[in-house]
Amino acid sequence: MQLNYLMPTRIIMGEHCIFENRSLIAQLGKKALIVSGKHSAKANGAYDDAVKTLEANGQDYIVYDQVMANPTDSCVFEAGKMARSEGCDFVLAIGGGSPMDAAKAAAVLAINDISKEELFGISFTSALPLVVVPTTAGTGSETTQYSVLVDTSEADGKTPKSGGPVKRSFTSPLVFPRYAFLDARYMLNLNRNITVNTALDSLSHAIEGMLTLKTNCLSNMLARESISMIMECMDTLQNFPGDPSMFPMEKREKLLLASAVSGMVIAQTGTAAPHSMGYLFTLNWGTDHGRANALLMKSFLSWCREKEQALSTGSIQGTSNRIPGLCKALGMELETFFELVEKLLGEREKTSEAELSAWSKLPMKNAAATFIQPSQEEIKRIYLESFGFQRIPG
Amino acid sequence: MQLNYLMPTRIIMGEHCIFENRSLIAQLGKKALIVSGKHSAKANGAYDDAVKTLEANGQDYIVYDQVMANPTDSCVFEAGKMARSEGCDFVLAIGGGSPMDAAKAAAVLAINDISKEELFGISFTSALPLVVVPTTAGTGSETTQYSVLVDTSEADGKTPKSGGPVKRSFTSPLVFPRYAFLDARYMLNLNRNITVNTALDSLSHAIEGMLTLKTNCLSNMLARESISMIMECMDTLQNFPGDPSMFPMEKREKLLLASAVSGMVIAQTGTAAPHSMGYLFTLNWGTDHGRANALLMKSFLSWCREKEQALSTGSIQGTSNRIPGLCKALGMELETFFELVEKLLGEREKTSEAELSAWSKLPMKNAAATFIQPSQEEIKRIYLESFGFQRIPG
Repeated sequence: MQLNYLMPTRIIMGEHCIFENRSLIAQLGKKALIVSGKHSAKANGAYDDAVKTLEANGQDYIVYDQVMANPTDSCVFEAGKMARSEGCDFVLAIGGGSPMDAAKAAAVLAINDISKEELFGISFTSALPLVVVPTTAGTGSETTQYSVLVDTSEADGKTPKSGGPVKRSFTSPLVFPRYAFLDARYMLNLNRNITVNTALDSLSHAIEGMLTLKTNCLSNMLARESISMIMECMDTLQNFPGDPSMFPMEKREKLLLASAVSGMVIAQTGTAAPHSMGYLFTLNWGTDHGRANALLMKSFLSWCREKEQALSTGSIQGTSNRIPGLCKALGMELETFFELVEKLLGEREKTSEAELSAWSKLPMKNAAATFIQPSQEEIKRIYLESFGFQRIPG
Repeated sequence: MQLNYLMPTRIIMGEHCIFENRSLIAQLGKKALIVSGKHSAKANGAYDDAVKTLEANGQDYIVYDQVMANPTDSCVFEAGKMARSEGCDFVLAIGGGSPMDAAKAAAVLAINDISKEELFGISFTSALPLVVVPTTAGTGSETTQYSVLVDTSEADGKTPKSGGPVKRSFTSPLVFPRYAFLDARYMLNLNRNITVNTALDSLSHAIEGMLTLKTNCLSNMLARESISMIMECMDTLQNFPGDPSMFPMEKREKLLLASAVSGMVIAQTGTAAPHSMGYLFTLNWGTDHGRANALLMKSFLSWCREKEQALSTGSIQGTSNRIPGLCKALGMELETFFELVEKLLGEREKTSEAELSAWSKLPMKNAAATFIQPSQEEIKRIYLESFGFQRIPG
């Protein structure tokens, strides 16, 4: 058995947990760089709680609140420069995956005067301590060593062809958050779209984490736990209340913890083919990341099952019982699960065979990480099936 | 939901994993203090692998190999002094729980000139990095922030009365091992007694971890995983082969990983009443720690079930479904499980009602950590029942 497990983030959960654990933050230094998006951190109360905590500790802070969805390289360099010129000792990220991923890069750039290629090439050996306060439940960035950014250097704005905006990431144990404060109060007013799409994101992390070459018994344990928590919220997600604040706090907490646990999964395994494939929806259509992965789920999992069943006839080596294990974790057969996902997704985006076929020729970084690597033809099939251009074999 | 999860140790598993990951150790400094017992680390090959690794890295080392079972305060001060005077940069522990726990203290004492009371009072803010190579599968020390030692200062050798040798521990996130290298090759020649008693130790960690006030959904996830792995080895443990090297490698690995996962459990939850109660067997009779806990398991779990069932009639508040959850993790009813444990334990030690009654009056630190706190009378009952002096109510 081979295993290499690391997840050093301290996860603290509970209402008002950041303020109640302010002594931990007091140890991080004199001055914080707060990283967030423009609005939500202030609207949901997380920003006020963070500021109250820093002020109670007598700690100074500056704010970079210009992180956009799918943060760009130029954004993180701006934040990093700000932290460096202001002499910040640590970074405190508030928000969803975008501010957290941006903050990871800023934590590196704050004390490393390096180029973009050096950032993505991990030419650094230090980073400021990072505290994260997730305000959505999906990204998992709160418990990973990954930062996913958009490289716009040669962007022409839209097209996915070479030279267009591309998602690029870097991976370093130095950017595991020191502390993740999980307070579900910040999620009380999240609308249906964000709640569902982020839940689908953490569900896809757990599911894909069960289907990689790096999957191991500990990552599977975490994935099962996360899937189980999300499935316990499935009824509430399906029947999302008219008033978001009526979504039960207990379920908000479950989704928030599930996100962190799914992050622990992909911290060990990485993700599989759907993550690379889904990025193209996000880059080209602006589709939410979680929804993007979920759009591919039915076709991808059907393909996995078909391949794995072929294994039992001896035609493919090196895999075993991934899909039955997943069904056990889900507590249902794939078909029943697909129906639930379809209901959450609703109507699909409009696209064309030509668009999808063109995308299937692009490099798919995570395809090779999948427990069975899909060929370019198979990736095309998964894309096409996902939008009704081909029938999913029964 | 309240949660505070931390387990920063990197767990690396596989044959030859320490040598293959020597680059990680190379980063820890120029000189190591190797901490071990007198014989087994050399006999099982772990010492040679460690030395080969350090030499390949061009790292210097000194050896403290005088750790006894249940290491004493004077032993750890000796090791710490050696590290300090020799200018060691990190500590490398090889062995079971005793060398690992001793090494944790030595890692503190190497850079803190403090007294015994300051050590147990956590009057320190630094420790050398610690690498551990467990050579038994039970202690869990490889993934915890605990060091359990014996304070002999006023010892008269035997009696458990005040002033006798007492187990004392300290807890600090600073002593979580940086790396735990799990290589089951070192366990290939462990005899039946050690194999069974250490397996019972990690089993008791997982079970007690499900029965504390600090138990949470993540600790339960870990406990279920560990229990499941140990139960998969139960047949092999029951039918221990005449030649220990015939115990399948795959099962050795399962027990080794289960030990680390049980450590992750108690890193979050601590242990419950049986650990404090069992220490008296160890201190007075020299009983192996794992066996000591297991001797109490039947009576303790029966008492827990009885108390929890009383809850459903409304007489006790604040607990729920602990024992049914445990049975689910075990995959069997308690009675079936008790039979398996009894077979592993074999004949019990001889004692008297008077001896056990006297012990039940001593302070039981972990009793208050149990999800329902046993009274002194109940502790006495658990002791007496465990040696047949009272009937366990059906």
